[in-house]
Amino acid sequence: MGREVWRGNFCWSAEPERLKVLEQGYLMAQDGVVQGTAKELPDAWKGVPIHDFGDCLVIPGLTDLHMHAPQYEFTGMGMDMELLEWLNRQTFPVEARYAEEAYAERAYTLFTDDLKNSVTTRACIFATIHLPATEILMEKLEATGLKTMVGKVNMDRNSPDFLREADAKASADETLRWVDGCIGRFQNVQPILTPRFIPSCSDDLMRRLKQIQKQYHLPVQSHLSENPGEIEWVQSLCPESEFYGDAYDRFGLFGGEDCPTVMAHCVYSDEKEQQRIRERGVWIAHCPQSNINLSSGIAPVREFLERGLKVGLGSDVAGGSSISMFRAVTDAIQVSKLYWRMKDEDRKPLKLEEAFYLATVGSGSFFGKVGSFEPGYELDAVVLDDRRLNRLGSHTVRERLERICYLSDDREIAEKYVSGKEVLQKQNR
Amino acid sequence: MGREVWRGNFCWSAEPERLKVLEQGYLMAQDGVVQGTAKELPDAWKGVPIHDFGDCLVIPGLTDLHMHAPQYEFTGMGMDMELLEWLNRQTFPVEARYAEEAYAERAYTLFTDDLKNSVTTRACIFATIHLPATEILMEKLEATGLKTMVGKVNMDRNSPDFLREADAKASADETLRWVDGCIGRFQNVQPILTPRFIPSCSDDLMRRLKQIQKQYHLPVQSHLSENPGEIEWVQSLCPESEFYGDAYDRFGLFGGEDCPTVMAHCVYSDEKEQQRIRERGVWIAHCPQSNINLSSGIAPVREFLERGLKVGLGSDVAGGSSISMFRAVTDAIQVSKLYWRMKDEDRKPLKLEEAFYLATVGSGSFFGKVGSFEPGYELDAVVLDDRRLNRLGSHTVRERLERICYLSDDREIAEKYVSGKEVLQKQNR
Repeated sequence: MGREVWRGNFCWSAEPERLKVLEQGYLMAQDGVVQGTAKELPDAWKGVPIHDFGDCLVIPGLTDLHMHAPQYEFTGMGMDMELLEWLNRQTFPVEARYAEEAYAERAYTLFTDDLKNSVTTRACIFATIHLPATEILMEKLEATGLKTMVGKVNMDRNSPDFLREADAKASADETLRWVDGCIGRFQNVQPILTPRFIPSCSDDLMRRLKQIQKQYHLPVQSHLSENPGEIEWVQSLCPESEFYGDAYDRFGLFGGEDCPTVMAHCVYSDEKEQQRIRERGVWIAHCPQSNINLSSGIAPVREFLERGLKVGLGSDVAGGSSISMFRAVTDAIQVSKLYWRMKDEDRKPLKLEEAFYLATVGSGSFFGKVGSFEPGYELDAVVLDDRRLNRLGSHTVRERLERICYLSDDREIAEKYVSGKEVLQKQNR
Repeated sequence: MGREVWRGNFCWSAEPERLKVLEQGYLMAQDGVVQGTAKELPDAWKGVPIHDFGDCLVIPGLTDLHMHAPQYEFTGMGMDMELLEWLNRQTFPVEARYAEEAYAERAYTLFTDDLKNSVTTRACIFATIHLPATEILMEKLEATGLKTMVGKVNMDRNSPDFLREADAKASADETLRWVDGCIGRFQNVQPILTPRFIPSCSDDLMRRLKQIQKQYHLPVQSHLSENPGEIEWVQSLCPESEFYGDAYDRFGLFGGEDCPTVMAHCVYSDEKEQQRIRERGVWIAHCPQSNINLSSGIAPVREFLERGLKVGLGSDVAGGSSISMFRAVTDAIQVSKLYWRMKDEDRKPLKLEEAFYLATVGSGSFFGKVGSFEPGYELDAVVLDDRRLNRLGSHTVRERLERICYLSDDREIAEKYVSGKEVLQKQNR
């Protein structure tokens, strides 16, 4: 890729409470890594061909820290249920269909096409328990150029017959087969260990998964403290655990060295659980829309931030109805306002700057130096043509960013880059 | 217009908790009023030309009970403030620009174009204090074919110099001039008396407005109990009032016979205020997204419904960022879930059916028999081509409606009718 210079209106986060804005300036990159930004092009970069984005807004790519690919087909359906009922009535019957490869082929084509056309550049994704379907998903994601982590899901108990692996050994063996099959196969997609959640994984399975995790140095994703009914259930299944997160931690599947872990939700994580999350360096995927749709509640994000926890945002498709990470940004702001008003006036609402930080740097950090235009960050970028939103007059870059978060849809996305490589270029620009 | 027969997939509310669905059936209308619906075309209607909407979904038009036309230009901006700060810093400076007719011309063209292209068929709309600009807005709305009520706003105190009328007399005189000027001028637009809210209208002005209201039999719209700071302020301005609503009621501008009134928000309306709302037959415009964005809180809609109050939905552009009444539907569902979870587990969340009812029949009732396909209702309808949302398979009509509410945008709107007249037909269908 070599050296590259971009020209345009740049906007990114270096720290949570402040946006950096560079109007009609330059971004310099080498081999897909940002080297710096400047109002005037430094002498050392003169002569390098300039890619000019005109008046478009160029922002870091957004990372979706939690989503379920097989659920994409029913976004915006079955939204009048709570978590456990929704799993049994809406989710599990659909996920079972992915046993059939032809079905997975069709459904995952739709999902990957739409993800490619979204503002998401990286994502942590749940597949289903089915190995062939998971491979189909990974192949399709590989072709998008997006960088993703994908998990074949593990479930060996408390799940309907049609969506449960025979036993712990069968589940672990299939996982091993899957992980082995991934080696050397993908550039952009990597496997992530995915026990669905404590209720659907036996102790025996969890122990086996830890072995696999250690052997292959795999990251881990799962769900944590989403819903009161779920939390009670976990407590009854694991009476010896101190709290929900401890039920993962007892098996070594809760962060710590060489086990990067992201846990979705954490709506009800109390001080003790947050403390453990901090000690183990676990990422939290805050999924505000899903937490509303499934009547789960509002996660105490301000508290997470004050304690220095690692927080990013997730769409949680299809508990969340929208695949758009801009919607996750505004949802995070909106629920934080209600949390402040209704629950704790000491926890001030998130500002746009903070929610944008969470969706870029916060989520991106699970993938390394990702989500910013500071030197050393991988050059993931979304180029936005927001003329449709600003027909009456001109606005500052900060105002444009806010409007884009609240008002834009896929029509504003002009181009998208991952590690400097173009992955999307709209034809009719 | 005469007799008409429509064929398609119809979906509407007759009562709050149940959707009526008619798949590939017929709707019969005479002179823009629904006569009935049937699976098989009754003999009496045979021979009448059939308008076939194919596989589209046909639903009643949605009524936006509360929005501010001059604020449309800044939707999705300045969202990190509370009500009173937001009014002073974001809203009032923009509204002041409408003193200039050329500006109003440009800005209201944008607003009316977008409203025409939305799912809204009727709306109650605030303009500004400026008479010429209000007339420009009314003319543009008239041309859309939508049915609307529009208010020149009254403000004679506690407002910045640049957005305040000289005194009560000047405000009332201008209002009279405006109302007189409307007579016989519009088919689709009618004036609605619009004291902005208690803080910006002196007692003298309120008395004068009541005279105008009586003389011309005008409806009334305003704001009520939106924000704790605002409510305190009203209490200090009107120490003799029992509660916020009473401050309107003392001047006869709070419902009752011959004074149909719609009050936006009612987030903090307590039992006493709700009782008065009920006695006076005041409509409540529930504006969930605005109440989130301005950190106001969540209105107790379930309580309103249990008490038999008249409730509809409003976008409250630009406290609400979206002009879409489908967004208002899903926002109403979502905040009701949080209200149930965080505040009162006795108030069960709204189901899709109920929120859809609020946006159609609930809001529409302020305009008469509007918002349903039951016999006797005016034929307001939105025709939705939702193929983009259902690329993987077919769904029931109820499922399609839910997806449309959560996922659609203007691209799904194919046609729109108000009182049987076509007001929108997308070209590239």
